[in-house]
Amino acid sequence: MCPFLKQQIKQKHDMTLVKAYAAQAADKPLAPFTIERRQPGSDDVEIKILYCGVCHSDIHTARNEWGGTIYPTVPGHEIVGKVTSVGAGVSKFKVGDTVGVGCFVDSCMHCSNCEADLEQYCENGNTQTYNALSQDKTYTTLGGYSSHIVVTQHFVLSVSDKLPLEKVAPLLCAGITTYSPLRHWGVKAGDKLAVVGLGGLGHMAVKLAASMGAEVTMLSRSPGKEKDAAALGAKHFKLTTNKDAMVAMASSFDFILDTVSAQHDYNEYLGLLKTNGVMIIVGAPPQPTPVSAFPFIMGRRSLVGSLVGGIKETQEMLDYCAEHNITSDVEVISAAQINEAYERTLAGDVHYRFVIDMATL
Amino acid sequence: MCPFLKQQIKQKHDMTLVKAYAAQAADKPLAPFTIERRQPGSDDVEIKILYCGVCHSDIHTARNEWGGTIYPTVPGHEIVGKVTSVGAGVSKFKVGDTVGVGCFVDSCMHCSNCEADLEQYCENGNTQTYNALSQDKTYTTLGGYSSHIVVTQHFVLSVSDKLPLEKVAPLLCAGITTYSPLRHWGVKAGDKLAVVGLGGLGHMAVKLAASMGAEVTMLSRSPGKEKDAAALGAKHFKLTTNKDAMVAMASSFDFILDTVSAQHDYNEYLGLLKTNGVMIIVGAPPQPTPVSAFPFIMGRRSLVGSLVGGIKETQEMLDYCAEHNITSDVEVISAAQINEAYERTLAGDVHYRFVIDMATL
Repeated sequence: MCPFLKQQIKQKHDMTLVKAYAAQAADKPLAPFTIERRQPGSDDVEIKILYCGVCHSDIHTARNEWGGTIYPTVPGHEIVGKVTSVGAGVSKFKVGDTVGVGCFVDSCMHCSNCEADLEQYCENGNTQTYNALSQDKTYTTLGGYSSHIVVTQHFVLSVSDKLPLEKVAPLLCAGITTYSPLRHWGVKAGDKLAVVGLGGLGHMAVKLAASMGAEVTMLSRSPGKEKDAAALGAKHFKLTTNKDAMVAMASSFDFILDTVSAQHDYNEYLGLLKTNGVMIIVGAPPQPTPVSAFPFIMGRRSLVGSLVGGIKETQEMLDYCAEHNITSDVEVISAAQINEAYERTLAGDVHYRFVIDMATL
Repeated sequence: MCPFLKQQIKQKHDMTLVKAYAAQAADKPLAPFTIERRQPGSDDVEIKILYCGVCHSDIHTARNEWGGTIYPTVPGHEIVGKVTSVGAGVSKFKVGDTVGVGCFVDSCMHCSNCEADLEQYCENGNTQTYNALSQDKTYTTLGGYSSHIVVTQHFVLSVSDKLPLEKVAPLLCAGITTYSPLRHWGVKAGDKLAVVGLGGLGHMAVKLAASMGAEVTMLSRSPGKEKDAAALGAKHFKLTTNKDAMVAMASSFDFILDTVSAQHDYNEYLGLLKTNGVMIIVGAPPQPTPVSAFPFIMGRRSLVGSLVGGIKETQEMLDYCAEHNITSDVEVISAAQINEAYERTLAGDVHYRFVIDMATL
């Protein structure tokens, strides 16, 4: 028998059917669907999902806005749950442990980036938690809008039971996406840091940067966000629509953490950096954005990007958040509310992350 | 008497007339002109200029292409000469010393950047060598296309007599502009570094990076430059017009040093950087250039700028070049050839820097 076919049949036999919410096409709402999860192999951890956060990427994928979505697709990469089964080779976890899964569930494990704990930049392409090809190229991953998931132990994170788990789930994407660049570029006590955009990423950026001792300024176009920004830990709030305020902030920040995915002008912000200042982009506007060479050259400024974080750093972030009592501000929804939650996310009507309670599946 | 008027009259009395080449208007060629230099004050060094390099900035200023040129203007900020007189408070230099002057001749000396030896980023605005207001705001500086210049000792550099002085002059701008970012971002032996553009800056970038042990690739649109690039120290030469070659270079460089001032697309280059790679721009295209967020985010890449170097680092660069026998490739011209040299510079017809022999003034 053809080894490939044999493998497929073996897989079919080793599969468990679990409940999920899936999009069947770009123009279809998400709806209940049954998917297959593999039986845990030697290195696998089977997780009963308790909560899954709703990230903007989920919407892009469900609606095929980035292209390449394979239907049916099950989004979700901010996963918190309990271990229900482990393979014989699993040493990191035992049944009953509280665990998390973030944006990717596998990588090549041998390229220089994987060896440097930077699996997010795996040179051979990591396997994202949903809509990605498995490392053995035999199936497409299905994400956290489901009752269970099976993940190889290296990509499973330990989650403290100290914090409310529904508020921990978004740390697996929004938390690490903002924590990693703050650490990588060495944000420290006393640094002046501006956060652009107060959404799922932005609210974590404010909390985390403030917890590290940075003096945080929220830059926003919405006057209504001032009170929230202060409550999250921002010392200052400035409207980017106020030209005088923008001029007065010239050359005043060590860092700008730009969380906005909508089209916007980087040049408005680059000049706000001090000499040697760093502007970090974690949101990806769909179209290229013009930048002038002058603010770079005249102040040795940097424009940099950052993508989530590696597994080691994600664990460090979870431990840090448990120690410093940092969680996401969430609105818990039932699975049936997911389509409405997508619309409200797109309208910016969420403070600051929807999280699905998987008990409602 | 009004103190300001008194000061002006005093200045007039303390002036020496010296020969120069000046532009009288944006649309006029440079021509012989007599200018005034102050008598050396206590901290001043009077320098007889032997050679002055011709930088593209000189042309922009002479022709008012950046706006703000005050006529008559005397360009020139790649100055090498001999000390002819020093003020009573000068300890760094004595008559007969070989010295250099670069892109700026004064700064506030007390802002945090000046105190950190980053006078090039003086927060109160440094005084550039030509077409800039003096720190006391009483006159506009006139540059190195002249027989003498008087500069406060802090901004005067020691030049070794080991190297041919006409080839040292361009180090004061083209040399330090490329040396400083290589040092600041820590380019080291074994790093893979691409240089974009082979002109005055680019040829110094290749020499300096190669001297530091980097494996240099020259990226160019001109097949004719391959031989020169190799002679300067580039190990590889790739045509940016060759799409296959560009694809093959994806994620392969630790650094890109982009010396091109003409309009070009940064996106073509950003993806050539490895994870954590840094693209350094030292040329300033006149218009903003669109950049996509994806290469930044997907590889934690950086786009950064750099402006010449501080006085301390410029001295370090001159000492380094003397030690490693690094100079600029120059074509020495007489002062009367300056207008022709401008045209040839604009046409890219120079290998790689024109230098005026001031004995011809």
